[in-house]
Amino acid sequence: MRWDPGPPPSFATLFEQAPLASYQALPAKFRLEWGPIYYRGRLDGSARLLIVGQDPSADENLVRRAMVGTAGQRVQGLLRKLGLDHGYVIVNASLYSIYGQFDAEMAGFMDQAAVRAWRNRLLDQLAQPGLQAVVGFGKAAAKVLDDWPGAAAFKAAQRLFQAQHPTARAPAALLKSWNQTLAALAPLLTPDPGVTPDPSPYPLSGFREQDLARVPAADLPFGMPAWLGQGDMATRLIKGQAKLKTPAANAAILWTAQADQG
Amino acid sequence: MRWDPGPPPSFATLFEQAPLASYQALPAKFRLEWGPIYYRGRLDGSARLLIVGQDPSADENLVRRAMVGTAGQRVQGLLRKLGLDHGYVIVNASLYSIYGQFDAEMAGFMDQAAVRAWRNRLLDQLAQPGLQAVVGFGKAAAKVLDDWPGAAAFKAAQRLFQAQHPTARAPAALLKSWNQTLAALAPLLTPDPGVTPDPSPYPLSGFREQDLARVPAADLPFGMPAWLGQGDMATRLIKGQAKLKTPAANAAILWTAQADQG
Repeated sequence: MRWDPGPPPSFATLFEQAPLASYQALPAKFRLEWGPIYYRGRLDGSARLLIVGQDPSADENLVRRAMVGTAGQRVQGLLRKLGLDHGYVIVNASLYSIYGQFDAEMAGFMDQAAVRAWRNRLLDQLAQPGLQAVVGFGKAAAKVLDDWPGAAAFKAAQRLFQAQHPTARAPAALLKSWNQTLAALAPLLTPDPGVTPDPSPYPLSGFREQDLARVPAADLPFGMPAWLGQGDMATRLIKGQAKLKTPAANAAILWTAQADQG
Repeated sequence: MRWDPGPPPSFATLFEQAPLASYQALPAKFRLEWGPIYYRGRLDGSARLLIVGQDPSADENLVRRAMVGTAGQRVQGLLRKLGLDHGYVIVNASLYSIYGQFDAEMAGFMDQAAVRAWRNRLLDQLAQPGLQAVVGFGKAAAKVLDDWPGAAAFKAAQRLFQAQHPTARAPAALLKSWNQTLAALAPLLTPDPGVTPDPSPYPLSGFREQDLARVPAADLPFGMPAWLGQGDMATRLIKGQAKLKTPAANAAILWTAQADQG
């Protein structure tokens, strides 16, 4: 059995200090009812790649880890191509699921002093000596990295990358950006033991089934069903949330089993 | 932040050896798709009370811990009256959610050599020197304890109790059995620091809101929503499961937020 027991004390302390009140002051912007999602992967200093995403969605709310749904499984496929199945850590620009896309209001929120200061402390604490590169996915992550003083060293060493969000609408542009990142990033990373990097480019037509990888059990809480980490398992009760504009105590997530044995 | 990181190595090893194949051979009896649920509470030898329940339901499948739904919150209320908010451990007669009630077929399953042997190893490993008493809730738990050789010492010391299942249909009979258990058990247990036992009996009319207690964060995985551990949050997609007789890959659980902030 492998699982992620939760953060080590240094990160648990930092998470306790997260600016949740700043999020809670904007109930029209964040799905506050599902609580904050902090990370996925290695917080013990063994991560060689730091990934910054946008925000958790329904799958992540269920599992309480970042990037475990379709977007996460696409990123996991990229990690596999980079030779990593363990030596990474993932955080998001927003601790809570956001309504809609990254927009000017979100950017303004991210500029709030408390929000920005805490986020930069988090990134500083993640940038431990063995870290070899940083990748941001999507516009919110780009802003996070632009606003992080610690990014300068990675930029100067050409070890900081911006790629499109893993579920960006236009597959050709998305996969072109991933191919560029893959080609430049692969030579910079020490692979995990037993994982052979595969820097062959993605076809620009779109993600194939084989381009996704399942989220490793080592990244998940104890005792999840055996099938967890693959498939599209979670949907909000009101799809698209077109009508639900603020957090509601009766908001719901539907969790569908991905196999007949767990 | 407090949370339960998962089992210590000695229990993780035991859980790895669980007779899951015996369950999986009976897909008409168990909701296999949600996987096994092993425990809630202390596995580090600090438990003074061992609780045996029946089987996990939808809430437990979500949280991956035993007794976190309404039944669990009723038991947690009893624990509070007994002076415990930490020093207990809970396991179930069945690792998987069962279809219907405890019946002759279930009893036959529980008599299978592999199932019984593993369950008794689990109970043996839980019966560490500081354990002061054992309580079984419901008929399945009664069978588990009857079949456990280790129960003899607790029986001889009048430290083994059988009470009705926390969601048994008839409240008067249920609460009468809980009152008897409470009165006999309370004097045997060392309370947790800062918890004052309250051995006053339950009114036989039924559980009141104040008779339930929330599941402590220390029993839950890392990073759950702040409201988790209270309320009735999980339902199966097909209520009552009258039509769904075998595990289905498209079985679903609906998770409803219990507050507008998590």
